[in-house]
Amino acid sequence: MSSSSQPGTPGLDDEPRSIRKRRAILEAATTLFLRNGYLGTSMDEIAALARVSKQTVYKAFSDKESLFSEIVISAVNEAADPVHASVLELEDTGDIEADLHAFARQLLGQVMQPRILQLRRLVIGEAGRFPELGRTFYAQGPGRTIAALATVLERLAGRGLLQLDDPLLAAAHFNWLVMSIPLNKAMFLGEDEAPASAELDGWADAGVRAFLAAYGRP
Amino acid sequence: MSSSSQPGTPGLDDEPRSIRKRRAILEAATTLFLRNGYLGTSMDEIAALARVSKQTVYKAFSDKESLFSEIVISAVNEAADPVHASVLELEDTGDIEADLHAFARQLLGQVMQPRILQLRRLVIGEAGRFPELGRTFYAQGPGRTIAALATVLERLAGRGLLQLDDPLLAAAHFNWLVMSIPLNKAMFLGEDEAPASAELDGWADAGVRAFLAAYGRP
Repeated sequence: MSSSSQPGTPGLDDEPRSIRKRRAILEAATTLFLRNGYLGTSMDEIAALARVSKQTVYKAFSDKESLFSEIVISAVNEAADPVHASVLELEDTGDIEADLHAFARQLLGQVMQPRILQLRRLVIGEAGRFPELGRTFYAQGPGRTIAALATVLERLAGRGLLQLDDPLLAAAHFNWLVMSIPLNKAMFLGEDEAPASAELDGWADAGVRAFLAAYGRP
Repeated sequence: MSSSSQPGTPGLDDEPRSIRKRRAILEAATTLFLRNGYLGTSMDEIAALARVSKQTVYKAFSDKESLFSEIVISAVNEAADPVHASVLELEDTGDIEADLHAFARQLLGQVMQPRILQLRRLVIGEAGRFPELGRTFYAQGPGRTIAALATVLERLAGRGLLQLDDPLLAAAHFNWLVMSIPLNKAMFLGEDEAPASAELDGWADAGVRAFLAAYGRP
């Protein structure tokens, strides 16, 4: 272990600068990808907007696809991490109806953030050319939430709080009942502003009511 | 009525040629838009692939956006028209469960056609820049199906076959329960081949079962 990586030891002098540069590159690239699309953005333009040399960009990211991938993965994880934490808490619920409503509202609020909507559109638009990136978005986003929710729903069914044969199917139905209506509108209408949170809460609540009518205890 | 438009009378000599050219332009444009995106496609390339002059392209379509719009609208209508006809027939159903299953399978089969999936990705990817086109796709596609289905579901509820307070909400839940799972995977995974029809039928059936559990007669 080199001395510079020991806990409590300050890093190399240039480390903070390289982190700052990395962040500037990521911000510039995000701005340009969202404005001009993936194909319409060059590493030269990213370097210029980030005010770094092209060499610096290539030192930090081996190519445009890696840079795009890092942006998408970190944005999706930032939205999905708090949702994932909440899914796990559902298992010990003392009030399944109230807790599913609260969870659905949180889930929808994360998905409908303007930046996440914009990236979702961009990844879908490029999925024919860059299916790997689409797979990553799907796996880290809806795929991860649905898988975790399936485990929890199965345990809630085991406690007699739900009725279901196929936990993964039930979790997917929950996910899309909660988000499909506002999400599909947002995908097509291209609006950058998310609807008011009262409106989103209404869609989340309606989705949970339908889910509980289908999968709740009789 | 001029003689050239009477049934059985051949049209003007140049009419078939202009129709052939128009079709060639639309096919070339569709190929290029799907391959290179909207921004990555020029009217020059469309003319070259269609083997017509650029003037001919501009005579048929005032600009690239009109051409793109015509492609999207005609593809969406081609998929949505038979669905719309089936929705209307649901009203007189003698077996709501069987008929909703058959309708759901048809609906999902239309939506999951490779060409419709590709256009859907393209329109979503461009929705930030061309929101008008996204609005048209939404209105002619899911918006139209959901609105027609809402009217029919309300009448079925009036016949005592369903239980619902909000027909438009119930119709949207039906639509997305049926298609969200395979559609969202297809959007992100960028696969051009639709899943096998047996797999799609399984998703459609699962969606209808959840819908009937939530909105069916107790």
